[in-house]
Amino acid sequence: MTTEQLTSHIREKQSFLCVGLDTDLDKIPRHLLQEEDPIFAFNKAIIDATRDYCVAYKPNTAFYEAYGARGWQSLERTIGYLNATCPEHFTIADAKRGDIGNTSTRYAKAFYEEMDFDALTVAPYMGRDSVEPFLAFEDKFVILLALTSNPGAFDFQTGTFGGEALYEKVLSASLEYAGSERLMFVVGATKAEYLAAIRKRVPDHFLLIPGVGAQGGSLEDVCKYGMNGQVGLLVNSSRGIIYAGNGPDFAERAAEQAASIREQMAKILAGD
Amino acid sequence: MTTEQLTSHIREKQSFLCVGLDTDLDKIPRHLLQEEDPIFAFNKAIIDATRDYCVAYKPNTAFYEAYGARGWQSLERTIGYLNATCPEHFTIADAKRGDIGNTSTRYAKAFYEEMDFDALTVAPYMGRDSVEPFLAFEDKFVILLALTSNPGAFDFQTGTFGGEALYEKVLSASLEYAGSERLMFVVGATKAEYLAAIRKRVPDHFLLIPGVGAQGGSLEDVCKYGMNGQVGLLVNSSRGIIYAGNGPDFAERAAEQAASIREQMAKILAGD
Repeated sequence: MTTEQLTSHIREKQSFLCVGLDTDLDKIPRHLLQEEDPIFAFNKAIIDATRDYCVAYKPNTAFYEAYGARGWQSLERTIGYLNATCPEHFTIADAKRGDIGNTSTRYAKAFYEEMDFDALTVAPYMGRDSVEPFLAFEDKFVILLALTSNPGAFDFQTGTFGGEALYEKVLSASLEYAGSERLMFVVGATKAEYLAAIRKRVPDHFLLIPGVGAQGGSLEDVCKYGMNGQVGLLVNSSRGIIYAGNGPDFAERAAEQAASIREQMAKILAGD
Repeated sequence: MTTEQLTSHIREKQSFLCVGLDTDLDKIPRHLLQEEDPIFAFNKAIIDATRDYCVAYKPNTAFYEAYGARGWQSLERTIGYLNATCPEHFTIADAKRGDIGNTSTRYAKAFYEEMDFDALTVAPYMGRDSVEPFLAFEDKFVILLALTSNPGAFDFQTGTFGGEALYEKVLSASLEYAGSERLMFVVGATKAEYLAAIRKRVPDHFLLIPGVGAQGGSLEDVCKYGMNGQVGLLVNSSRGIIYAGNGPDFAERAAEQAASIREQMAKILAGD
């Protein structure tokens, strides 16, 4: 997918919502546990119910790995279903990978080729040659961790690194790796006050914003400081949508939540 | 496993060698491709051939994920075989994970509980609450990335961060997370000249040293600067051992390589 296609989908849907598929067997409705693959059954229902309100899906790989090869199979089924039924949706493997060159290439093949995700989240600590193998795939994206939504973001990311914050150094260094057609950044919604400064450094790049909802970030603030002329935002909500209900009507409850966020987004885009 | 057990195994074997199981279908001997699970067949032969010369095994998860659920199954079989046949060997999942708290817990369950690895490599960028969930498991270890073996280590890790290098800040900050009974560090063999300074900060911790062999690091330098009174080193070699041969005798060739490294280590330990 290209950023042009993503932006045009956002304009059409009047939504820049990404639904996080952090699917946990302990939290899904009990009646699904009798299914052959309860995780996939849950995801399929959530996807069918929410696809009209969002433009992206983001499974976090930890939730699948926790169930071993079986969980990995649920992840493969989920991305297969997304690619077959929602080809216009942007798909993100939230895996936070990063390793020495030849090893990063193996991860890239896993997520871009084997599973055909559009994007992968990548951790920057190991530097340029750990990120570049992920940038070598046409129409695929690296979403680099810049400023994350958790409290530990203040431990290293915001510390002073050669005259700027470490996350600012990550932003500026990575602009040499690739342009906005291949690279996006993770910026936590809980750090909305940083967004204005971040936009000065990366005016054109898409930002993936986790932390709205359960983690306490505000959609209004994120849009006020983070939106650019091409929208340039994907705002993720996971638990707030997928666990909105816990009974037989869980998918309808999830749809309601997604629709409500989409409505807020449409209002913001209309005033934009 | 405890560090005491690991050190006693090192003393007994006169080896601190870790064999990296970075198993790649394109590189293993052709005759194995007819096996039902060629990756596991290869690993089993390598483990049987090298176990007398090493004290640890380290599969890099990227090589398994590259083959999807099937690869994940090969990883599960490999750790299952290690735990069944070499319970005294220290097992490391080289996965370089790290995420917000509740998500890190999912990764921890995957590697420590589902697969029963002794240790997991973890990336520090997201800070304390991304690492701590991995430290909550008894007799399990976090091996935190400090100074890695790749060229990109100079992009952020060695840069000045509040008066010290970023990797030094990672070392000193993480000492507040846990002691040497729960925490180890990755330091690349290609950065041996940094080891003396690192030992001043973390005199008691085990260091996992990749980069000897294919990446060009020197065993002598690593030992000279990095060894402590309890040895305190695990030196990893992957490609140099497992791909030493490519014919029907590949396991014997791997054993020869491992034996030769063990012999160098025994000499160093004797003069220690």
